[in-house]
Amino acid sequence: MNTSKHTVVIVGYGGMGSYHAGLIRENDRLEVTGTYDLLEERRAASVEAGYRSYASFEEVLDDSAVEIVLIATPNDVHKEIAIQALQAGKHVICEKPVAMSSDEFKEMLAAAGEAGRTLMVHQNRRWDEDFRVIKQMYDKETIGSLFQLESRVHGANGIPGDWRHVKEQGGGMLLDWGVHLLDQLLFMIDSRITSVSSSLSFILGNEVDDGFEAVIQFENGVKAMVEVGTTNFISLPRWYVKGSEGTAVIEDWSLTGRYVTRNNEGVRVEPKPIRAGVGLTKTMAPPSEGATITEALPAAAELPSSFFDNFADVIEGTAEPIVKNAEVLRVQHLIEAIFAAAEKNEVIKNFDLYTSK
Amino acid sequence: MNTSKHTVVIVGYGGMGSYHAGLIRENDRLEVTGTYDLLEERRAASVEAGYRSYASFEEVLDDSAVEIVLIATPNDVHKEIAIQALQAGKHVICEKPVAMSSDEFKEMLAAAGEAGRTLMVHQNRRWDEDFRVIKQMYDKETIGSLFQLESRVHGANGIPGDWRHVKEQGGGMLLDWGVHLLDQLLFMIDSRITSVSSSLSFILGNEVDDGFEAVIQFENGVKAMVEVGTTNFISLPRWYVKGSEGTAVIEDWSLTGRYVTRNNEGVRVEPKPIRAGVGLTKTMAPPSEGATITEALPAAAELPSSFFDNFADVIEGTAEPIVKNAEVLRVQHLIEAIFAAAEKNEVIKNFDLYTSK
Repeated sequence: MNTSKHTVVIVGYGGMGSYHAGLIRENDRLEVTGTYDLLEERRAASVEAGYRSYASFEEVLDDSAVEIVLIATPNDVHKEIAIQALQAGKHVICEKPVAMSSDEFKEMLAAAGEAGRTLMVHQNRRWDEDFRVIKQMYDKETIGSLFQLESRVHGANGIPGDWRHVKEQGGGMLLDWGVHLLDQLLFMIDSRITSVSSSLSFILGNEVDDGFEAVIQFENGVKAMVEVGTTNFISLPRWYVKGSEGTAVIEDWSLTGRYVTRNNEGVRVEPKPIRAGVGLTKTMAPPSEGATITEALPAAAELPSSFFDNFADVIEGTAEPIVKNAEVLRVQHLIEAIFAAAEKNEVIKNFDLYTSK
Repeated sequence: MNTSKHTVVIVGYGGMGSYHAGLIRENDRLEVTGTYDLLEERRAASVEAGYRSYASFEEVLDDSAVEIVLIATPNDVHKEIAIQALQAGKHVICEKPVAMSSDEFKEMLAAAGEAGRTLMVHQNRRWDEDFRVIKQMYDKETIGSLFQLESRVHGANGIPGDWRHVKEQGGGMLLDWGVHLLDQLLFMIDSRITSVSSSLSFILGNEVDDGFEAVIQFENGVKAMVEVGTTNFISLPRWYVKGSEGTAVIEDWSLTGRYVTRNNEGVRVEPKPIRAGVGLTKTMAPPSEGATITEALPAAAELPSSFFDNFADVIEGTAEPIVKNAEVLRVQHLIEAIFAAAEKNEVIKNFDLYTSK
């Protein structure tokens, strides 16, 4: 064991827990030294992978060699585990969604504050390249000022087959995937939300949503549509965004995409009406030749460091967190507004206390 | 002149008026015998095309040889022209949107009733093949019970350059294109609307909307999204629809498209998690090989006859109108609800008095 690395114990060694172990193996600053899981088969898998399997969570807490607890359990026990770990003097990395509600998260924040320890949420999809390409276009106005963003993930596999079906454990797609897409959106757009409307889908007959769509209006004029579906046998593009000078699309995570802008250099030629269906339309005719320019997607915006490097910097006191808890709390409030908008079938307004820094 | 045909005078011989003349030239039952337009160049064009140019609208009304007045003027004068024509004993074909408001349309309906003459609105896009393919899938449950319909038309040419920019003349995309998409939707779905939310777009700085999107919830569980855009340099598919057994897409008016369904014959194989962005996902992984079937679009649903043949049948008393005025009135109410939802930024409920026949 390289003692210069920060020691991590993963609580919950399922799909995400073992994925984290793999990621941390590639990191220079952190090192997984053990895991804790309720299930015998996962304890065995941990030992096989070379990580000590703790017999109880108390044993983790009592082990002064453990600096960091990484929580990858179902959502309903994040709060309890995090608070105990913080009170035992550990730093905490928590999977998303951080908690079942903003109130739960506030309790966790209070515990971190009292203990003087770091709590950081693994909002890893801020690092997704597709998102960072869109962020670049937003920041640099590649297609003019972006005013409409549509962020979709479409699958056809339903809800994964475990606790994500169960409401009491924090299942459902708004909490599972929605939290990523909303986190990306709020990380990118520095403006107050003025209204939210939404609908949840319950096609698969679960007690939790198998998808949702939400329309989010920002004070700066940007309108965002966020959609998650698990009953989509054909996918719409991952990103579809409109700016004052053009439109961009990213089809999928392979980063297939392009942007098309108005050609301000070209001679202005009125488009010719086309026959469309049984009717005639000039409005919906393709722009005249030379009226637009198609280009490859720009390079992605860079973030200052990786999630785990940033975490190491934060606990060493040399950097601010990239995933700030105030941002996570705001996403949690937004999720609650989306649930409320869908349940009441109303437009929810004036819930966002956010003010730009 | 073939006297066995019903005589039509076109009022407003602009783009749509001359398009109608061309369509009627191909029809066995109707014949354009003249036009009336305010502009000298259009009068000349009419004479050149072989149609008498009437010197005044009164001259049209006084001409007992004229059976039908076809109105292809800006929207704000539809009502006045229609009522005068009906009172003069003419049948009326009116371009869409039929009027500036449901109240205006009710006045037109009263005039038709009093005169005992036919008033029919040219909702021609009920005959569009792309729509009829979707209607077939809805009626026949090709991909199971359809529960989500997304109907979009995207252009990048802005609003066409004439009265369609002017609010007082009934301009804007909700009235121009929205009326088609909403008419298709209500023609297909025999269920009461329970709520509507919407937003209008004013990107181009006109006093009228340059596009809109509306989410329409039906009592039978169908949710529809209707969107028109004129600032879209890349187009999303014309139709994207989800059923209980699959998903279908129609890209554009060329009828490029497909549908993908669950393969109920196949062996159920869990999809493998994929790396997507910086994360892992099983939910959004492509379905396992053999888990789905891709097929070509089905043939389109047939309507009993063409618009103009149906009109001839109706005035001869041998058929019911395919475009019923009660349906047109309902679409007009829906448009008003969409305007209200956008202006108030609220979900509008309980406005649809519709009951299934």
